[in-house]
Amino acid sequence: MTTEFVKQKPSTFMQKTKGVLGSLCGKIWKVGRDDPRRVIHALKVGFSVTAVSLLYLMEPLFKGVGENAIWAVMTVVVVLEFTAGATLCKGFNRGFGTMLAASLAFLFEFIAREYGKVFRAIFIGASIFLIGTSTTFLRFFPKVKKNYDYGVLVFLLTFNLITVSSYRVDDVMKLAKGRTYMIGIGSGICILMSLFIFPNWSGEDLHNHTVSKIEGLAKSIEACVTTYFCEEERDVERDEMISEDQIYENYKAVLDSKSTDETLAHHASWEPRYTWQCHKFPGQQYVKIGSVLRHFGYGVVALRGSLQTEIRTPRSVKLLFKDPCIHLASEVTKSLMELAYSIRNRQHCSPELLTEPLQQALQDLDVALKSQPRLFLGPNTAQNTPKMLAMLTSTARQKYEHHFSSINTESHTSINKKPKGGQDGAGKFLRPSLSKFAITSLEFSEALPIAAFVSLLVELVARLDLVIEEIEELGRVACFKEFKHGDDVILDVDRRKSTEINLTSFASVE
Amino acid sequence: MTTEFVKQKPSTFMQKTKGVLGSLCGKIWKVGRDDPRRVIHALKVGFSVTAVSLLYLMEPLFKGVGENAIWAVMTVVVVLEFTAGATLCKGFNRGFGTMLAASLAFLFEFIAREYGKVFRAIFIGASIFLIGTSTTFLRFFPKVKKNYDYGVLVFLLTFNLITVSSYRVDDVMKLAKGRTYMIGIGSGICILMSLFIFPNWSGEDLHNHTVSKIEGLAKSIEACVTTYFCEEERDVERDEMISEDQIYENYKAVLDSKSTDETLAHHASWEPRYTWQCHKFPGQQYVKIGSVLRHFGYGVVALRGSLQTEIRTPRSVKLLFKDPCIHLASEVTKSLMELAYSIRNRQHCSPELLTEPLQQALQDLDVALKSQPRLFLGPNTAQNTPKMLAMLTSTARQKYEHHFSSINTESHTSINKKPKGGQDGAGKFLRPSLSKFAITSLEFSEALPIAAFVSLLVELVARLDLVIEEIEELGRVACFKEFKHGDDVILDVDRRKSTEINLTSFASVE
Repeated sequence: MTTEFVKQKPSTFMQKTKGVLGSLCGKIWKVGRDDPRRVIHALKVGFSVTAVSLLYLMEPLFKGVGENAIWAVMTVVVVLEFTAGATLCKGFNRGFGTMLAASLAFLFEFIAREYGKVFRAIFIGASIFLIGTSTTFLRFFPKVKKNYDYGVLVFLLTFNLITVSSYRVDDVMKLAKGRTYMIGIGSGICILMSLFIFPNWSGEDLHNHTVSKIEGLAKSIEACVTTYFCEEERDVERDEMISEDQIYENYKAVLDSKSTDETLAHHASWEPRYTWQCHKFPGQQYVKIGSVLRHFGYGVVALRGSLQTEIRTPRSVKLLFKDPCIHLASEVTKSLMELAYSIRNRQHCSPELLTEPLQQALQDLDVALKSQPRLFLGPNTAQNTPKMLAMLTSTARQKYEHHFSSINTESHTSINKKPKGGQDGAGKFLRPSLSKFAITSLEFSEALPIAAFVSLLVELVARLDLVIEEIEELGRVACFKEFKHGDDVILDVDRRKSTEINLTSFASVE
Repeated sequence: MTTEFVKQKPSTFMQKTKGVLGSLCGKIWKVGRDDPRRVIHALKVGFSVTAVSLLYLMEPLFKGVGENAIWAVMTVVVVLEFTAGATLCKGFNRGFGTMLAASLAFLFEFIAREYGKVFRAIFIGASIFLIGTSTTFLRFFPKVKKNYDYGVLVFLLTFNLITVSSYRVDDVMKLAKGRTYMIGIGSGICILMSLFIFPNWSGEDLHNHTVSKIEGLAKSIEACVTTYFCEEERDVERDEMISEDQIYENYKAVLDSKSTDETLAHHASWEPRYTWQCHKFPGQQYVKIGSVLRHFGYGVVALRGSLQTEIRTPRSVKLLFKDPCIHLASEVTKSLMELAYSIRNRQHCSPELLTEPLQQALQDLDVALKSQPRLFLGPNTAQNTPKMLAMLTSTARQKYEHHFSSINTESHTSINKKPKGGQDGAGKFLRPSLSKFAITSLEFSEALPIAAFVSLLVELVARLDLVIEEIEELGRVACFKEFKHGDDVILDVDRRKSTEINLTSFASVE
């Protein structure tokens, strides 16, 4: 028994160690495989730090630079970041903060030099208190916090170090000079490493992130609509779970993207990558697209919410609208995919191409709705739907513009001017015939969720228009390639015109 | 003309300067007034930095500590943060990183000591490369990045500094000792300042942030419903703009709160504030509440979306549901406000108290819906609504639990088993009577948006249940005070029970 125990113990220990090591290796492998640039970046940092340490380790180099070499090491470790933009941003903050602090410290030193030692100590103490308090307060300003927080911290640190040291060291100037050279060498290595050797660009990351967000939304919508209409035909329960997870994961990435987008755009603004082309990198336009996509994403959340509503629409009613709804959703998906494709390849998308099949899908849905007028439609349906869509689009735009620019005080006026006559009469008219419609009312109760579903879907189309608009703007700002007519593409130029006409005709009605 | 110009120039310059100064002062005043703790924190930093500088400036102190005093200054500037939790977190990261790096560096030094100078240089170079690469890679692990990013950076920095210096300096041990003392003094000042002199607590911030988010959502809902039902009665256009802005601002703060919540909770986990009471600060529970509130917030976004739908419901139809909807919304608002109040005062809320008037409001809405059966209701309405609500609540919970724990594979099965008979007949039955219902169908078309609005409102009630649940859990975890019966409070204990009965009865039906 004892021998067995002794035998067993090492083997279980070995097994456990193996298990832990195995899972650790798995994790390391996963982190590396998810983004191989991480491995390259780690090697770059290792190489840079070693290179800069040679200043200290190699005798001839050390004779040249001396103790100050430590500042080069510090600069490389602190400043070298994953992307070029982040490195430049941090480097600039550090450099500018240090320079400003040094200048100010020398100015104070110059003023205090004339006086006695006690006065100098008091003067230095007071200036440290003053600068310490004011710079800390400065860091609470939103703009400073967002862009220059690190720079202000470095400023305060350097100012204190120089002011305090200068009290004890006589030749501060020489010290400062030596350190500045070293910081310069460190910065040089950082710039070389981040810009020229396997560079990672924040702009590129932002670009790819935007593309994958659009694709994610497209997948979400498709999965939503498929789940809604096909859930009763499904046998396997697991499929639903996977699909639900997909929907959730895909739109969640969009909803939570705000801070990532803004950081990437901020870093991208430091990257000199495209400046030799016609433009600066349009980081802010990507941020705008991000916020339109979030706006769109909230619509997807609502659509997904209606999957869980408990008043189930009978299958027969669903079947009536299944094909047009799936068609519309697949057109929205296709449009999003095309938009993603056009951004990925940096070429303009054809707006006519995008809206034409969408309009067709809306028409189909309209026809389906008309075929069941008791469920949804008003009397003058033939003219209503395009108008309704034009209005939906324009209101969604107003709504968006209102919130993102807080101007636009006139656009809402038109809404309130709607004619109000004849409705009270209709209300009275309906009440007596209550019992007569007792059976038919069954259908309306169960049509309620599908009404919500359809209106959310149409709302998504209206929001899609905003997305298209911002992506077109991106194409303009970022000088995308011209749209090329593919072989599999049918172009209908008149279509766009007709939407404009609808908008105009509506305006004249108002 | 010339004299006039000369006269005018200084005056405009003065005016401009005055204007710039004025706006600057205004900004400074605003930043300080928004949160007066900022001013206190700035003064605290100024004071600490000055105090620590005295080590350098005062002769007797300097004799004791020498050049190393600079490390105390550095520690104070870098570590002292706005809240106690952030300071402790950063301080721990810095301290632990430094200690670990020093130990490792001395180990390597111990190994390399035996050999010749050239071998030592190669050994140091290789170890720097190895540690540089591996720590940088380590920073890409999500858990490390979230909690220990700064510590790993400090580790790398310190390791390099010590390894490199030890090559040139003989008595590294003495150097390290001196610096450690200074870092200790710096840390001591930071701890004193952040924990004992006007401390700011991340936990407190998170707590207040959560309360204000709940209140913001309450205001949003109220504003939404008021805007929806009263917009045609309003005269002044500006009112709408303000109200729309309010809705937007209030729920926007909730939707974008994820990263703030997580940072605050992370810092709060470092605060020793409540540990002497029965519990650790339940930061993670606040994060959970934050995510439930965001889930609730998406519902408010959808509700607000229906304000802009272009198919306007006639005033007569709206009037039918105005009172019950406003009643329900005001009950939801009141519940949220009570929840906010209970969290603010750290006392349990009475769930019976919360659900009782809500149930009443739902009943009222139900009655209103029943009074217009042609618009919304199925035949067996009397039994349907409570069941529907119970199901809504349970599905919303399922949905939530599914996404936040990714378990729960069985709950959806019940939904698919719904009976499907008799519906195809109804579909056929309706078609021939198309022309007959031409006028009445007008009403259904215009009831579509109000159907969506009502169902979204009811969905919100279901989501409110999740919020209540998480807040009750918070009450348990954080040892809130017991709920006290106020004078203005009517308690109905049976109410809660009836909801449970509904849930059970529904389960037995399935």
